[in-house]
Amino acid sequence: MAPKPGARDPHGWSTALTSIGANQILVRGYPIDELMGRVSFGDAIFLLLTGELPTPTLTRLIDAMLVGFIDHGVTPPPTLAARQATTAGAGVNNAVAAGILSFGRNYGSDVGLCLQMLEDGLEMAGSSMLFASGAADMAEHLVQRDRIPPPGFGHRVHTTDPRVTRLLQLAQDFETDHLHTQYLRALEMALARHPALEDETLPINIDGAIAAVCGDLGLSVGVAEGLAIISRVPGLLAHTLEERSRHTPMRNIDAAAHSYDGPALRHLKDRR
Amino acid sequence: MAPKPGARDPHGWSTALTSIGANQILVRGYPIDELMGRVSFGDAIFLLLTGELPTPTLTRLIDAMLVGFIDHGVTPPPTLAARQATTAGAGVNNAVAAGILSFGRNYGSDVGLCLQMLEDGLEMAGSSMLFASGAADMAEHLVQRDRIPPPGFGHRVHTTDPRVTRLLQLAQDFETDHLHTQYLRALEMALARHPALEDETLPINIDGAIAAVCGDLGLSVGVAEGLAIISRVPGLLAHTLEERSRHTPMRNIDAAAHSYDGPALRHLKDRR
Amino acid sequence: MAPKPGARDPHGWSTALTSIGANQILVRGYPIDELMGRVSFGDAIFLLLTGELPTPTLTRLIDAMLVGFIDHGVTPPPTLAARQATTAGAGVNNAVAAGILSFGRNYGSDVGLCLQMLEDGLEMAGSSMLFASGAADMAEHLVQRDRIPPPGFGHRVHTTDPRVTRLLQLAQDFETDHLHTQYLRALEMALARHPALEDETLPINIDGAIAAVCGDLGLSVGVAEGLAIISRVPGLLAHTLEERSRHTPMRNIDAAAHSYDGPALRHLKDRR
Amino acid sequence: MAPKPGARDPHGWSTALTSIGANQILVRGYPIDELMGRVSFGDAIFLLLTGELPTPTLTRLIDAMLVGFIDHGVTPPPTLAARQATTAGAGVNNAVAAGILSFGRNYGSDVGLCLQMLEDGLEMAGSSMLFASGAADMAEHLVQRDRIPPPGFGHRVHTTDPRVTRLLQLAQDFETDHLHTQYLRALEMALARHPALEDETLPINIDGAIAAVCGDLGLSVGVAEGLAIISRVPGLLAHTLEERSRHTPMRNIDAAAHSYDGPALRHLKDRR
Repeated sequence: MAPKPGARDPHGWSTALTSIGANQILVRGYPIDELMGRVSFGDAIFLLLTGELPTPTLTRLIDAMLVGFIDHGVTPPPTLAARQATTAGAGVNNAVAAGILSFGRNYGSDVGLCLQMLEDGLEMAGSSMLFASGAADMAEHLVQRDRIPPPGFGHRVHTTDPRVTRLLQLAQDFETDHLHTQYLRALEMALARHPALEDETLPINIDGAIAAVCGDLGLSVGVAEGLAIISRVPGLLAHTLEERSRHTPMRNIDAAAHSYDGPALRHLKDRR
Repeated sequence: MAPKPGARDPHGWSTALTSIGANQILVRGYPIDELMGRVSFGDAIFLLLTGELPTPTLTRLIDAMLVGFIDHGVTPPPTLAARQATTAGAGVNNAVAAGILSFGRNYGSDVGLCLQMLEDGLEMAGSSMLFASGAADMAEHLVQRDRIPPPGFGHRVHTTDPRVTRLLQLAQDFETDHLHTQYLRALEMALARHPALEDETLPINIDGAIAAVCGDLGLSVGVAEGLAIISRVPGLLAHTLEERSRHTPMRNIDAAAHSYDGPALRHLKDRR
Repeated sequence: MAPKPGARDPHGWSTALTSIGANQILVRGYPIDELMGRVSFGDAIFLLLTGELPTPTLTRLIDAMLVGFIDHGVTPPPTLAARQATTAGAGVNNAVAAGILSFGRNYGSDVGLCLQMLEDGLEMAGSSMLFASGAADMAEHLVQRDRIPPPGFGHRVHTTDPRVTRLLQLAQDFETDHLHTQYLRALEMALARHPALEDETLPINIDGAIAAVCGDLGLSVGVAEGLAIISRVPGLLAHTLEERSRHTPMRNIDAAAHSYDGPALRHLKDRR
Repeated sequence: MAPKPGARDPHGWSTALTSIGANQILVRGYPIDELMGRVSFGDAIFLLLTGELPTPTLTRLIDAMLVGFIDHGVTPPPTLAARQATTAGAGVNNAVAAGILSFGRNYGSDVGLCLQMLEDGLEMAGSSMLFASGAADMAEHLVQRDRIPPPGFGHRVHTTDPRVTRLLQLAQDFETDHLHTQYLRALEMALARHPALEDETLPINIDGAIAAVCGDLGLSVGVAEGLAIISRVPGLLAHTLEERSRHTPMRNIDAAAHSYDGPALRHLKDRR
């Protein structure tokens, strides 16, 4: 029987994540010093969240998702919340925390919600033979419930998001584009055909692509949500450090008045 | 002249991080879709925080630091704060935010403080010839100011932290163990010899090792602080997801009553 | 037409809360220095949140609600999150923030959810003549949806919560116990009579009582949620300051091991 | 001996704040239901933070401070952080938390820092006979350490802050303007006379006035910091609720483009 809430559990409780002994730290069983220098950060993230190290293919997909969501310029509200904390002189960790807790219904929470929607859609459709009609039903349902744009679709700026194209291409190259991705594409088509959405442009966005790839990799909604949070922290930090070093304290931060003065377009192949 | 605080800056303001155009996202100049699938998450973090992609050596050191600080079991206060938020039913991002903002004077903030102390020490010592006497002066200063343990030294659990041994070995292998690491070692020795600290054990801890390696790589205090925050987020998430899936809501969380029931010791070389 | 998200609104935007001029601050039109020393903090809270100063009756009810939710000892997760942040050495504002964002589905969010449920119930029931059957339908609905305990009902510790008795008595004394309170009581009875809940004890809890009183006073769900947050902040602060002054840093905080050593029971009438 | 950090304390631990028994809640010894409807929220805050209920004079001063810091329009960074969280669709408690943790070196933390400075100044000056020379020394010290403006002095908008005038007048009326207030005034004069500060206008600001009044009332730095946090929460909430109800999600929030459209100037004496 579960212990009464708030009472001490006489049997104690367990964790399966990290074992701490004197001069020994095991992450999911592996000595942490053995992992250091031998596996990448992305690998260690996957190990910690799922219990096992990824295959090389998984490593590349996980890294592609983490890189793809790492930053989206100055306009996202979490980024601006982090800059507001910084202009007030708050610490770096405070700025990042202000950013993370500014993920909300309208920004940053679509990965988890979209994966949940895909799971629901797949369960209702049953067989992939029925994806077209199942997705049409889902589109109708979303219109009825006034959930347009649905999580994972539509973008303020992009009509063909280069991250989506790339991520779904990688999933195809690695032959991991299974049911979730197929359902996502079927839903994109069903939304495009819905009579009430004639004037809407609802392309798959990066959240939707990450959700589908995570689903096809067998990752849970929680892990997918978690990857989205992990991936954006470096972006929040970069804006925090830039705000601190380049701008005056207590300034008025008007995102619409900003311009970009970083490096011009360059390519990986041009590196020496 | 800097604009008056709170007033609109007539010239607008700039960012050098990420450029957003319709269907184009450039991170420090590189198209994000070109980075996806080609560079690791650690590489992208380094690019975003410093402006350039790391060399292969740097990639391995950065990843080693990020892996080394990724989790330390259930007892750190930020981990417990994240679990408290979760047992109350708060969202995943709230739990992570509660963890990050629980980094404080006694836990999680040593990386930045230690690097600052090393920078100060190096500036005072002037030449590496004078590290022994400079470090002795610093040790005396720390004792006088009641700053024992100093940031980067001492640990609740470990006397010879395996992460420290491994990270400093990697830095030596890659020939990046320069002045900051040397000064850190000189200070460790000076602390051990200080008469007032006879009864103390003050080994270099993982925060100190990360601080020195960051310093030797030319990374700023802000970037070093940032790497520590980034690296712990997956750990906070893993505890949040485990709390949610394994434990009853509103339970009493007594860290001293926990045990580990994850995989037994295993090694990378045993993987198929 | 609403401006496109993220774009600058050419017409600017407005606030109706506080006007700031050189050496003049108007809160909802009143000079703040005129309010200081003349109205209570509770009055000013009401003014700021609703636009008008309360009547004397309202003042007492608002204060009663704010006092009633001010603290509930060491076991609530937000309180423990605040203590965790403090034992790590985080700042006072960080500790309070960690507490506030640990309000979740299982703790601290019932006031808003219960008021919403009451609004829905009142709309469905239509007339107060139909409360008994409407509440029975609602109870059935809650059982079907597995929402037991419903927001505003049940408590980990109390069967007859003295705060509920007192608050509802005050509302009756001031003749403000209108439809929301009546519906709340009807729902309590319907829950007690539901065959599937025979073994449950689901008394109205303080969140439910606050929700009903707020509803009867015409306050919105947002204002009711807000009052709950405001009221708990002093409690979070008191625990933060006590943790800092009485306890050792980095201690293991086991709520089940605490005892109370404050003043013994005393009464207002005994004050000199 | 203090227990080792992280280990279980065999003797348990104590709290002196709130005692929770079945159907009984004692706040500092008083039954909470006896406090409800009989003491104001300000009184209960004081009781919880200090251990005793305030005298009527104290009640008015505490309330005056809490009212005086309740809101300062849309431009403070914590307010904008709360609005950013809200435009992203985050919850009300998240928005408030984002605001509170955006208190930083440049905004919102002066009350505690100023009270600490006053305590230090009083200790150095020794006797009130020596305030003039002590304050001159302190002014010189602040100039040398580049701490201009010092905490509690200077304002972005106001030269004669009406809140300061009012609060110090109330303290004088109630005859509580003792050493801290006198030292604060002596320091204001010393700053005005310092040759290096000829071009600066450094009036006492509201943080400074609150700090001095708290000091004269015998409140600790922690309690003074706490009062500042408590007092601003309703303001953060009011902006959050207004952002949610009046503005479009995901909008660009440019504080410099706002205007006030609330009630025109009105006075307490005109109320019916």
